[in-house]
Amino acid sequence: MNKPQKVRIAAPALRTMVSTMFERLGTSQEDAATVADVLVWANLRGVDSHGVSRIPRYVEMFESGEAKARPTMLVTRPRDAVIAIDAGAAPGPVAMHRAAVEACTVAAKTGVAWAAVRGTVHTGAIGYYVSEIADAGMIGIGLVAGVPNMVYAGSIAAGVATSPIAIAVPSARHGTVLLDMATAVIALGKIAQYRQAGTPLAPGMALTAEGLPTTDAAMAEIPLPVGGAKGSGLSLMIEFISGVLVGNPIVAEYHSGTPEGQRHRQNGTLIAADISAFGPVDAFRRNVDAALAAIKGLPHEPDCKEILYPGERGSRTFSERTRKGIPLAPGPWQKLCKDAEKLGVAMPELLPTE
Amino acid sequence: MNKPQKVRIAAPALRTMVSTMFERLGTSQEDAATVADVLVWANLRGVDSHGVSRIPRYVEMFESGEAKARPTMLVTRPRDAVIAIDAGAAPGPVAMHRAAVEACTVAAKTGVAWAAVRGTVHTGAIGYYVSEIADAGMIGIGLVAGVPNMVYAGSIAAGVATSPIAIAVPSARHGTVLLDMATAVIALGKIAQYRQAGTPLAPGMALTAEGLPTTDAAMAEIPLPVGGAKGSGLSLMIEFISGVLVGNPIVAEYHSGTPEGQRHRQNGTLIAADISAFGPVDAFRRNVDAALAAIKGLPHEPDCKEILYPGERGSRTFSERTRKGIPLAPGPWQKLCKDAEKLGVAMPELLPTE
Repeated sequence: MNKPQKVRIAAPALRTMVSTMFERLGTSQEDAATVADVLVWANLRGVDSHGVSRIPRYVEMFESGEAKARPTMLVTRPRDAVIAIDAGAAPGPVAMHRAAVEACTVAAKTGVAWAAVRGTVHTGAIGYYVSEIADAGMIGIGLVAGVPNMVYAGSIAAGVATSPIAIAVPSARHGTVLLDMATAVIALGKIAQYRQAGTPLAPGMALTAEGLPTTDAAMAEIPLPVGGAKGSGLSLMIEFISGVLVGNPIVAEYHSGTPEGQRHRQNGTLIAADISAFGPVDAFRRNVDAALAAIKGLPHEPDCKEILYPGERGSRTFSERTRKGIPLAPGPWQKLCKDAEKLGVAMPELLPTE
Repeated sequence: MNKPQKVRIAAPALRTMVSTMFERLGTSQEDAATVADVLVWANLRGVDSHGVSRIPRYVEMFESGEAKARPTMLVTRPRDAVIAIDAGAAPGPVAMHRAAVEACTVAAKTGVAWAAVRGTVHTGAIGYYVSEIADAGMIGIGLVAGVPNMVYAGSIAAGVATSPIAIAVPSARHGTVLLDMATAVIALGKIAQYRQAGTPLAPGMALTAEGLPTTDAAMAEIPLPVGGAKGSGLSLMIEFISGVLVGNPIVAEYHSGTPEGQRHRQNGTLIAADISAFGPVDAFRRNVDAALAAIKGLPHEPDCKEILYPGERGSRTFSERTRKGIPLAPGPWQKLCKDAEKLGVAMPELLPTE
């Protein structure tokens, strides 16, 4: 049996398809373009689990009312360095992009800005938003709190979320240096990839739904936290920083067992620090490069071909996929096409596969 | 052979001894009290590797000029929400405590404040400073960048520092919830404890000075990063956020191999977010409690007696040691006494050991 072939699509064509789909789903042209850019960016970076394969879930969320295509976002500035955004169930890219723009505008004045996003859905690859901040010559720090799906150290249940942390800084010659990590040992999307490939997990990565350790990807349901108490402790603090701070706690509500507590929703935080408030931006960029050179020049492990800085792999994938197009797995692609067809959106031209 | 007995000292007596020592070493009365409070706090919390056992190293650093007993600290406010502190080689507790005080004062106005500390030494247990911020009804986030002593993922050498992250939030009934973690799998102080006890390390914790994996604590020199690329990536980003931002890069300088590059120095960052800028503080505190109750109520692993929230163990040790006194290992205690004797400082009364 032949493995079903991946399709390959040029990024601009995919972006047009996605933004047209979101417009048909009811979002404004501007918001549709934002969502398309964020999702396709994830695919370009190789983070396919956060890319266009999420669209069918958006369609469901618009239908169920969990997400709003025409949200009423309330943006306030309760203090000079604070932006509070009540997202009103806006799609994550719409709310988080707005937060990044506001954070940069405010940080340019106050030096530092903290944008708190309350009640959005599916923030996606948060590396996008902190990269927007880095593009403005600032340090970007992003955190997201969501519904519990990761083990809390010592327990055998999904106690906290796989809450991601992203940090981006600009360099002179290496583009944006971007760390974008979940607090779990392994992402849920990766477990799904192992499952599809029929490959076993390493021990210590995940538990079954019943809370038993497993290496069988088909049985693995709840990822373990990175570094045990460190990873789940970080995740819990992110719930406090992002969710409890804005009066939208998720962890406690979830465990209360009410249907409302289980509803998909997320809270996000973006912090922007304007480098020029601390010193010359050019020197910062050059010193980042110098540190990267030092790290890349360290002696290697025997089975490590090259030492990579945070985001280096994603940045290479981005270049390659920008040039050659984005490969998409046939399953998710077919699902996406079905939704596009329903919405009357034309399929993009497929590129020849290699 | 009997194991040499630990001594036990009441916290106030130890604090008096330490502050008198620092006054004799030349620091002001106020700074001496701050250093004593920070070091004894670490012992009270059970973080003995960051407590009074560090004093002989301070004595050396004052003598070598790496640290200054009477530092000229330059505190500026380049933008509304930014405090820049050029520490002038002040002892870490002096510079970081000052940063915490300034961050709280500024955040009370702007909602968020970022205090950058450039060129201090031995910041110690940074949980102290973020706890000061939490005591002011704010969220405290602390980062410290120092001289490389941890493996960078893929390499076999000390590429980056074990850069710690600390986060503290206030609760209603659980005191301060405090996560205080290094980005390494195991702290250097812990390796030393295993070495003294003759206990082997678990695999995957550290390399030898030559970069070979080892479980022999006597040979272990370079701890591995928590979660591989995640831990060392976080540490590198902390170097950018704390060191490169203030024009005092350490990683690149260190690997350049100059004596200046190897000199002990640290840069620290404290971020304070005033909870009242985002919503009612009482509700925040109560919602933190609710999340802790949910976490503690999760089903346990068979070999886990109780699920702990971040800082719970340290907080219990703090209560116990406040009541019963601080136990100190005989080796470090004798070293401390020798320094105290040289400085003409009287020994505190020892409590009866149990």
